[in-house]
Amino acid sequence: MPPLTRAQFAPYLSTLPEWSVIDDRRIEKIFKFGTFADALAFVNKVGAIAEENGHHPDINLFGWNKVTITLSTHAIDGLSENDFILASKIDEI
Amino acid sequence: MPPLTRAQFAPYLSTLPEWSVIDDRRIEKIFKFGTFADALAFVNKVGAIAEENGHHPDINLFGWNKVTITLSTHAIDGLSENDFILASKIDEI
Repeated sequence: MPPLTRAQFAPYLSTLPEWSVIDDRRIEKIFKFGTFADALAFVNKVGAIAEENGHHPDINLFGWNKVTITLSTHAIDGLSENDFILASKIDEI
Repeated sequence: MPPLTRAQFAPYLSTLPEWSVIDDRRIEKIFKFGTFADALAFVNKVGAIAEENGHHPDINLFGWNKVTITLSTHAIDGLSENDFILASKIDEI
């Protein structure tokens, strides 16, 4: 299955506020927290969702209170429906 | 207090296998694991040490089983003894 094209993923993206598309191949969002502990708790919630879905984003906890989540489907070197499903679940945390 | 110079941090660095110095301003090491769960457990142990020490590295969990730890002292925009102390504690995990 080829990666989703921009036309194909545009409808999914429109439902996901503040997610950016990078190189048409991955989506990314930065989440900010009040404390490092809150940021780490969020990382763990994302981790649990990732395990449930068998799909693992890159998770970058930086600047003590920010977390960048990056989603891509490595097998197709691009974006699949799975990435947008997972982004939506992460937004619900 | 100014950042440590290369001459000053060299002795610390020599005790830390596989840590790289980037731009003389931060140190970095990649840790690999067998599973995402193991990588996430490591992230939490690093997080606990960071909180104990009041010094927070950037923690990047990527490619489902790898974690990059990046240490720097933001207040001085460079490396301090604290970075090397924390690196040593992380290596002991």
